[in-house]
Order: sequence, then structure tokens, then C-alpha cells
Amino acid sequence: MRKANVFFISDHTAITVETLGYSVLTQFSSMEFEFRTIPFMNSPVKAESALEVINGSYHKTGTPPVVFSSITDSKLRSKIKESSGIVLDLFDLFIPALENALHEAPIRALGKSHSMTDGDRYGSRIEALNFALNSDDGVNFKDYERADLILVGVSRTGKTPTCLYLALQYGVFASNYPMTDEDLESIELPKPLRPHRNRIRGLTIDPNKLHLIRQERRPGSTYASLKQCHKETAAVEELFVRENIPFLDVTNFSIEEISTTILYEAGWQRSRI
Amino acid sequence: MRKANVFFISDHTAITVETLGYSVLTQFSSMEFEFRTIPFMNSPVKAESALEVINGSYHKTGTPPVVFSSITDSKLRSKIKESSGIVLDLFDLFIPALENALHEAPIRALGKSHSMTDGDRYGSRIEALNFALNSDDGVNFKDYERADLILVGVSRTGKTPTCLYLALQYGVFASNYPMTDEDLESIELPKPLRPHRNRIRGLTIDPNKLHLIRQERRPGSTYASLKQCHKETAAVEELFVRENIPFLDVTNFSIEEISTTILYEAGWQRSRI
Repeated sequence: MRKANVFFISDHTAITVETLGYSVLTQFSSMEFEFRTIPFMNSPVKAESALEVINGSYHKTGTPPVVFSSITDSKLRSKIKESSGIVLDLFDLFIPALENALHEAPIRALGKSHSMTDGDRYGSRIEALNFALNSDDGVNFKDYERADLILVGVSRTGKTPTCLYLALQYGVFASNYPMTDEDLESIELPKPLRPHRNRIRGLTIDPNKLHLIRQERRPGSTYASLKQCHKETAAVEELFVRENIPFLDVTNFSIEEISTTILYEAGWQRSRI
Repeated sequence: MRKANVFFISDHTAITVETLGYSVLTQFSSMEFEFRTIPFMNSPVKAESALEVINGSYHKTGTPPVVFSSITDSKLRSKIKESSGIVLDLFDLFIPALENALHEAPIRALGKSHSMTDGDRYGSRIEALNFALNSDDGVNFKDYERADLILVGVSRTGKTPTCLYLALQYGVFASNYPMTDEDLESIELPKPLRPHRNRIRGLTIDPNKLHLIRQERRPGSTYASLKQCHKETAAVEELFVRENIPFLDVTNFSIEEISTTILYEAGWQRSRI
């Protein structure tokens, strides 16, 4: 397998260039990449040191490394472009096009995403996270009043990770309710959920996969048995259908995919810092 | 304030284009943007419907909307480019440059980031999340053996949100230990932490900011008083210095900035799905 070194360089967290780089490089899955992130590269001294690292990689491998960068200061950006790497800078690539499109001059300030610049939005993410932690696993029914969303499903369908992701990334107030055996024997929605029907989203999963996940947690238990997994998923899906609750099969879905699907189907625009 | 509509369109979650778009648009903070995300645009019918929405935006506002897209299928991408929007496609912008740089042809597969494609890595993120939840707030000292990192600080310095972020995004196993009054009266590290000294990172914060944060949580309490906040932060910083524990002032830091700083200073390359 051919190899290449990849750098992510930014004057701030470098989270944006990492996300971008990992995404576009999936299109070159025939190669093997070695990644290195250099965040907070915000002074001439740090630029000099980054330059040395990039050039060192070239000397060592004989191949120019790929550099994904987002560097707002044009002098520091120029410095990195003097390197032996192939530099793809976010600002170089997007700002002129956007300037044209928007008929507006950029402000060229330090990258502000992933910071606390927008204090309200940042605060709401942390508040949403505390909310998700406090109302996790159906422990605080009275919190449902404040919830944007209540995820309902049997144990180990990804309710908690999804709630935490929705909170951390988007400031969505999400609670969850784990369906117990007792709940599943009833033909009705569990009582604490009834007043909040329109905010409920169901999660379900292939019983074979659920069996594998539960086996890792409690090997050999009734809880993890294939029979139990079949019984629970069948019952919860029947309930969702009967109660007309929108639900999602998460068998092959990551928490990002579950979150995206739920927010999109609810018609909510998400925003990030 | 001038306004513009912005679309994020992808055949998958659209998380990458959102992250990118929000980031580069911070350079146009003199304008007001209205965002709309269209994920899972992966069929001709869905492309047709997205096209209508984009053109509708143009008709309504008289200004071409900006479209950040990552669409792997070239036919669907061409369709969106027929719209009246200004289309900035990730693949168009980066793939040819990367092809040149890497001397390798792209595979043109559906965007794979933010999915479960790499099952091991996805699994480790979920495992790290469960770990963070189970060992939160110093409840399971024996978990420290498995921790990559142990965050130490007084109450409300962002330990828990940072641990959850590190787990969710990077699969880092992070625990935390809240320093109590009793711990702070001792001149030594709390006993459960002593065997793990090299994995400990301290967090501290400006006492005035801590006071504000705690006031929101328990208004008027001793816990929230400025005097108590001064006392605790002074004591914990003294301990960090005395015990030679690297620590970070998080007063103006988001959880992304805290995470980036800690991982970078520890010399760990982070990776994302």
C-alpha cells in the first residue's frame, strides 16, 4: 500500500481541517495515511517550527506531504506555503469564491469556530449536556417538559450516546426513556411519556446485532439472549407502530447518522459553533 | 445587515460541509446568514427536490444562495450545479488537487466519514463514552487503570463535558476526579490519584468566572461564594504546581479548545471517524 504523510495545521483548534481532510481522503482508500495535527500555530516561531516538521517529513519519505491548513494570518500562511508540502488552505480555496459570491469583503479574523465567541450558543450546549446527563435513562420524568426530544427504545440501542452527541454538538435538549420488560407488556405508552407524544422518537435495532452488543456487556445472561432480544425489539416496534411514533432502525447507523436523520426528519436546522 | 441564504448539501450526514461552511463564513461576520442542511441527498428524486429548494430561495430573495456540498455521485453533483446557487463542492475543490499531489486516482465512493465503516474505531468511541459515564466524578477509582487521561479540578471547571467530548470525538478514555474541600486541605495528591500521576491533567479557572457559573447552579450558597471560589482555585493551583502536574486555565476555553490543547501537549495524534 502506498503511503503519504498528512498534516492538519491551524491557528486555532484545527478541528475543521481535520474533519475536512479525513472526509476527502476517504476517497483515496487505496492509500495509507499518517496524520499529524499542529493546532494553535499562531506565531512566526511556531510557523518556523511547523515548516521544519513538514520539510523533515519530505526529507524522510521523499514524497511531499499533504497539508490541510486554515491559517487566517496571510504572513503565517505564506510561510507554510514555502514548505515542501502540498498546501491546501481553506481560506485560499474558499474565501475568494465566497467574496465573489457574496459581494462582500472578508474580515480576516482568527478562526472563530469551536471557541466560546458566541457565548450564548456555547452555554446552551453545556446546559444541554447537563440536561442530558441529569435526565438520562428515564430518571427525571419532570425534565421531559423541557426536552426538545425524547428518545425511546430498549436497552443498548444508542439512546444515551445520541442524546449526548445532540447536546454537545447542537445544544439540543434530549432525554431518553429505556423501555423495560414491564413497559413492553403493556399495550399503552408508559405513563410518563404520554403527555409528550409529539417529541418522542423511537429507536430499534436488528435483534441479532442487539444480542451481540448485550453479550459483550453481560455474557450468557437472559438479558443478552437472542430470544430476549427478539422479544423486546418485536414488542417495541409493535408499540411504535400502534402509537404512531416515528422510529428509526439504528442497526447500521452511527450516532452522527442517527442524529442527522432525527433532526432532519423533525425539520430542525442544526447549528454548530 | 446584508443577508444571504446558505445550504449544506450532502449524500451523507452533511456534518463535514456544515463544519467547513460555518468555519469559513466566520470570515464574513458583517453578514447575516440563514442556514439550511439537506443530508442524505442520494437519489435523482432528492436532487430534483433540493434543486427546487435552492432555486426557490433565489426567487424569494433575488440573491443566489451559497451552497456548500459534498456529493460523490457526479450526476447528482451536476444536477445541483444547474441550480441558481453558487455551488462550492468539496470533491470538486479538493479531489483534483489531491489526485495531483498523491499521484493516485480517487475511488469516488459514497462519503464514508461519520459512519460505522470503520467498526473498530466507532466501537472504541462508544466504549470510551461508556467508560467516561461510568467513571465520571471520581466514582470508580479502579477505572483509572484503564484511563488514558484523568482530568482533575474543582467543581464546575468543565471536566465532565471535556471527558465526554474526548470520548465521543476521539475515542479517548478519560476519567475525572473532582477535588473536594477535604482533598484541598491535604498537602498531597488524593490517594486514588497517586498511582496515575503521569496521566493526570489539571484544570483551573478564574475565580470570578467560577463564581458566576456556580451562582447559576446554586445561587447564594457557600459553594458559589466568591470567597470559596478564590480559596478552591488558589489551593488547587498550588497543588498542581507542588506536585508538578501540567494544568490549563480554562476560563476562556471551549471544550474543543481544552481537548485540543491537552491532546496536543500530550503529543497524541487524534483521529476522527
